[in-house]
Amino acid sequence: MKTLIASRPGGPEVLALAETALPEPGAEEVRIRVTVAGVNRADLLQRSGRYPPPPGWDPRRIGLEYAGTVDCTGARCILRRPGDRVMGLVAAGACSEFIVVPERETLSIPANLTDVAAAAIPEAFLTAVRALWDEGELTPGEAVLVRIATASVGLAAIQLAHIAGHPVAGTGRDSARLDALRALGLDHPLVEGGGMVQRARAAMGGAPRVVLDLWGGGRLSENLALLSDDGRLVVVGLLGGNRDTLDLATLLMRRQSIRTLTMRSQPTEARIALVRRFERQVLPLLAAGRLTMPIAQVYPVADAAQAHRDMERGDRPGKRVLLLATAAD
Amino acid sequence: MKTLIASRPGGPEVLALAETALPEPGAEEVRIRVTVAGVNRADLLQRSGRYPPPPGWDPRRIGLEYAGTVDCTGARCILRRPGDRVMGLVAAGACSEFIVVPERETLSIPANLTDVAAAAIPEAFLTAVRALWDEGELTPGEAVLVRIATASVGLAAIQLAHIAGHPVAGTGRDSARLDALRALGLDHPLVEGGGMVQRARAAMGGAPRVVLDLWGGGRLSENLALLSDDGRLVVVGLLGGNRDTLDLATLLMRRQSIRTLTMRSQPTEARIALVRRFERQVLPLLAAGRLTMPIAQVYPVADAAQAHRDMERGDRPGKRVLLLATAAD
Repeated sequence: MKTLIASRPGGPEVLALAETALPEPGAEEVRIRVTVAGVNRADLLQRSGRYPPPPGWDPRRIGLEYAGTVDCTGARCILRRPGDRVMGLVAAGACSEFIVVPERETLSIPANLTDVAAAAIPEAFLTAVRALWDEGELTPGEAVLVRIATASVGLAAIQLAHIAGHPVAGTGRDSARLDALRALGLDHPLVEGGGMVQRARAAMGGAPRVVLDLWGGGRLSENLALLSDDGRLVVVGLLGGNRDTLDLATLLMRRQSIRTLTMRSQPTEARIALVRRFERQVLPLLAAGRLTMPIAQVYPVADAAQAHRDMERGDRPGKRVLLLATAAD
Repeated sequence: MKTLIASRPGGPEVLALAETALPEPGAEEVRIRVTVAGVNRADLLQRSGRYPPPPGWDPRRIGLEYAGTVDCTGARCILRRPGDRVMGLVAAGACSEFIVVPERETLSIPANLTDVAAAAIPEAFLTAVRALWDEGELTPGEAVLVRIATASVGLAAIQLAHIAGHPVAGTGRDSARLDALRALGLDHPLVEGGGMVQRARAAMGGAPRVVLDLWGGGRLSENLALLSDDGRLVVVGLLGGNRDTLDLATLLMRRQSIRTLTMRSQPTEARIALVRRFERQVLPLLAAGRLTMPIAQVYPVADAAQAHRDMERGDRPGKRVLLLATAAD
């Protein structure tokens, strides 16, 4: 079977389709014929050698999220059957014709979603759920600010927070793109630039209790200034950089905290627990058409390098996805 | 009545006893004749002008914790009566012959504790409870490392964590003083110096899930390196400094978080909730003699400047307390 690899650490040109053995599922695992895989910024970092997967995962194999069909099941599987449409996360190698995963890590694809739509869901929405409620500890009515709202996790977080009744602010560089997010539930679009703290305060009528940050280094002080006393800064991305200076005295005086999360480094049991909760809490909203992830572009897996280039350029919001079925032809 | 003030921002020499009006309790407040007040590092900072109390509190008046006797009660008080021995926290002005506080913010003094022993309890033990369980989210069996264990909050945290069955490591500069803390429940004394991460790992047989830090700036990276994946760094003091560089990428990869707390800036209702819980959970341990706060030295309030000088020198662990009764003579 074919699988997308980074033949060595480097730019998009190192991506290649390799031939590997068909994987066999263990007793509680299923084999999935992947039809579509989502592209994530973590793939770009892994490809360049800066973000290897956890131990036990092949650092050359690319891809964190998939949609597809169950091909066969292990001896003790009870949840899935061959032919079931499923989506989910892996720590590496989702861009493969076949993958093997624990059946309890798979999510049913609601009937109203195409495989393209489904492959864009897991990483962004699972991350947003964990960021807003587990690390962010949002309680009813609390306001949240999403910095960069136009990133995929931001798009997911805006919708989830809006449906749960939280006032939502979000930042971005492009005013028109931000305004378009009002349709997803963004209450307060804030164009990146000077005076952010004052502008956010004025727009929101106060400070948010949670800042969900995808920017990271360079805006740490400003993000903490944006946040209310007792607020939680949840860092889930590092678009801006890895390091910053932290003023611990202000952090203490304002009783704030800094939380983090990555989906990929979670142990299996943590991922399963989240997936099972997600199936109860969020899948019905997806099935009802109340949540969506805009698709920026669909590529055949053979054009993965182009997808990486386009994502690096960041020319428009939404998910880029790779069609694996094409490779199987 | 007499009250200890900082006549202007400055060194210990600016401390003076001022004459002020006797305060009258509101309907749900009690007036307390303070017998003993604890000295805290925050008093030294406030005195020097660097740590003013929250709005509504006189920034000149010194003192965060007290022990004493209820003098009179407001019309709607139901919990306390004149003559009750009580201890507790205020945001400023505890070093006064009389103070007025909401009755629900007072803690009963167990019969086995003198007023000197009681005045040493509230700040250290309430902070430790909040740091270990609320911010630290310790769950049964998890190990904790206390950096600087010889500070008062450290002394409290060691005992509380030990009684709850948590393996406890603690750092300090003086080997003999650290070893003496074994009697309070310290399992792993670690003398401050090079190779701390390796030494802690070796002593504890792994990494702690919570680091309770009183040092702050200068050891942020090392504290995070000490901590396990998914671990919580709880910063409650800044003996070392206010600022440091934060490596957000490592924080994310290891799914760690940085929490903070100060007792003083908490709103009244948060303090009351904590005090009421403390009365249920920790007061019985104090009454049973299972918890103690070593007393470094007892001073008449007229010698407050000397107490501040001694604390700045940090010559030995334990609480310094001021006798207010002397001033009343």
